Amino acid sequence: MTVGHVRIVGTGLIGTSLGLALRRLDVTVSLADPSPTAVALARDLGAGELAERVAAAPDLVVVAAPPDVTAAVVADELRHWRDCVVTDVASVKGSVLEALRATGVPLDRYVGSHPMAGRERSGAVAAEADLFEGRTWVVVPGPESTPAAVELVTGVAASVGAAPVRLAPGEHDEAVAAVSHVPQIVASLVAGRLRDLPASAVALSGQGIRDVTRIAASDPLLWTQILAANAPAVRQVLVALAADLAETVAALADLAPGSRATLARMVAHGNTGHARIPGKHGAEPTAYATVLVVVPDEPGALGRLFQDMGDAGINLEDLRLEHGVGAPFGIAELAVLPAVGERLEDELLARGWRVHT
Amino acid sequence: MTVGHVRIVGTGLIGTSLGLALRRLDVTVSLADPSPTAVALARDLGAGELAERVAAAPDLVVVAAPPDVTAAVVADELRHWRDCVVTDVASVKGSVLEALRATGVPLDRYVGSHPMAGRERSGAVAAEADLFEGRTWVVVPGPESTPAAVELVTGVAASVGAAPVRLAPGEHDEAVAAVSHVPQIVASLVAGRLRDLPASAVALSGQGIRDVTRIAASDPLLWTQILAANAPAVRQVLVALAADLAETVAALADLAPGSRATLARMVAHGNTGHARIPGKHGAEPTAYATVLVVVPDEPGALGRLFQDMGDAGINLEDLRLEHGVGAPFGIAELAVLPAVGERLEDELLARGWRVHT
Repeated sequence: MTVGHVRIVGTGLIGTSLGLALRRLDVTVSLADPSPTAVALARDLGAGELAERVAAAPDLVVVAAPPDVTAAVVADELRHWRDCVVTDVASVKGSVLEALRATGVPLDRYVGSHPMAGRERSGAVAAEADLFEGRTWVVVPGPESTPAAVELVTGVAASVGAAPVRLAPGEHDEAVAAVSHVPQIVASLVAGRLRDLPASAVALSGQGIRDVTRIAASDPLLWTQILAANAPAVRQVLVALAADLAETVAALADLAPGSRATLARMVAHGNTGHARIPGKHGAEPTAYATVLVVVPDEPGALGRLFQDMGDAGINLEDLRLEHGVGAPFGIAELAVLPAVGERLEDELLARGWRVHT
Repeated sequence: MTVGHVRIVGTGLIGTSLGLALRRLDVTVSLADPSPTAVALARDLGAGELAERVAAAPDLVVVAAPPDVTAAVVADELRHWRDCVVTDVASVKGSVLEALRATGVPLDRYVGSHPMAGRERSGAVAAEADLFEGRTWVVVPGPESTPAAVELVTGVAASVGAAPVRLAPGEHDEAVAAVSHVPQIVASLVAGRLRDLPASAVALSGQGIRDVTRIAASDPLLWTQILAANAPAVRQVLVALAADLAETVAALADLAPGSRATLARMVAHGNTGHARIPGKHGAEPTAYATVLVVVPDEPGALGRLFQDMGDAGINLEDLRLEHGVGAPFGIAELAVLPAVGERLEDELLARGWRVHT
């Protein structure tokens, strides 16, 4: 390990999960939070000791506070501890750095960061020691950050199982605007349009709109803070998206041959962009073979299916379950490496499954 | 069965799948398609006989042609066969009916319909006899349709395992605009914005944008036809969405306290709309208990997990798999009925799984 003592300020989902992960590595963790109840809960869960019980100065302070108070808390910590490195985990980086600059505190010991880990639930009770395992953790040095400070934060991210990547604050904020914040807004807007739809219309919802709107179930207050903190970058993507949308609306209003070309180009551009999204394990997108299997809706049915796949020595690369409306079964869409697709089909057919490719 | 002989015009995914399903019920199926290759393939797959080999008149004609030629083909079939009922399966209904009216052919024997079944792949090779099982099949009578014709189409839909529901053409088109066509456009637009993004930014893509853009992989030509055929209804939803989007952009430009309320309301409206989407099996949305399990990335691991669930007599209601970036394992999110959530956790822990709730 690269640190002996980490102080965590803010014991919500991220702070408590980090405490649990670091305790597993036998790092000393001291916990602070404005809410005595919240910090006591994190302590009881095993995320570390109450800060007032730990006399030693920390090697690293991790500020895991809500986005709108992050800069103020980071500045306080930098002023209070004269030697240690301070990082934060806010999902927006440029506005935090800007607010920190305004405080006048020297920023050589500050390195921003953003673990790309979260859950639909929040708070210490939802915390997990392996929340960061396999997730990207963006390390975002400012121009003043010392190499040693950057290395320390990178090392801690790696030690809890995350994959650290380095980006400049502007790069980070533009990236999350496009791949996280704008998808959230769009999902919310599409779902919001369902509010006044007749029930008979909502009843026609299929897997497409379910996927598009899954993240529309997110917390309004947290997202207001995130969007407000990254307003310029989010606005820039949204303005471009609004222009694309206006072009589509215009094409639908005037169905000349050129307008059909506009619609086709819009869908084709979506094909191209979609193909760039990395696949499983951050690898290049792979074209998997897909096998559809009818799965009865009863205990153990999926178990038998995956057991049969295991017996055949075939690894599942990805999986989607689709449920029939009013039907006593579902369809499992098994994605496997192309080379084994045909064999999987044969193996499952031989074991009595209803299979389609 | 309600019919003895069904003629299917158009042997793509839907037409061929319907032929396969009806053949399983011992209905005589005659197949026609402008492409001799396509119809021969459907015949070879077992979807029915070539139409020229079947002398008898059909009881029902199902036109499964591309949306832009559907009305012309339906009119031809109504003119050619003097007794039988004719339906089509185009995903837009109002414009087909309008185009049919313009032909002057009597429409008492015509009933529009729309099986809500599809796949990301198209063509006869992707056809499946159980494509319609558990899916909604919207039956859309025109004002002229006879009750007997409506009943016949409804009966055939039910006989292949679909759940028939009845809507007026306008109701249908407004519903699919909101729950299918607009989500498709929005997914394409969000994915399209990724085209020019730096690779380091696309690399931060998580499950959220994967879900939002999954359907962006769809066929541009088919979707151009669908969107053009439902242009007024799609445009109406898009205009409302564009207004919501403009409000969000304005709120991000001017971060006054009122603007934050606008952002929070936008996300909250999304919560409300999302909660209306029906859950599994068309039932009311259910709040499931969620259990997270760490699954090693090796053959049979999922099999053991579901076998253990089956042994415990607990049924899986829904499932999501999340893959760690660069990690040799994934997280399975198991959704079960709330009453058994705690027991599932205990059972899995007892069997050595790493479990979180």
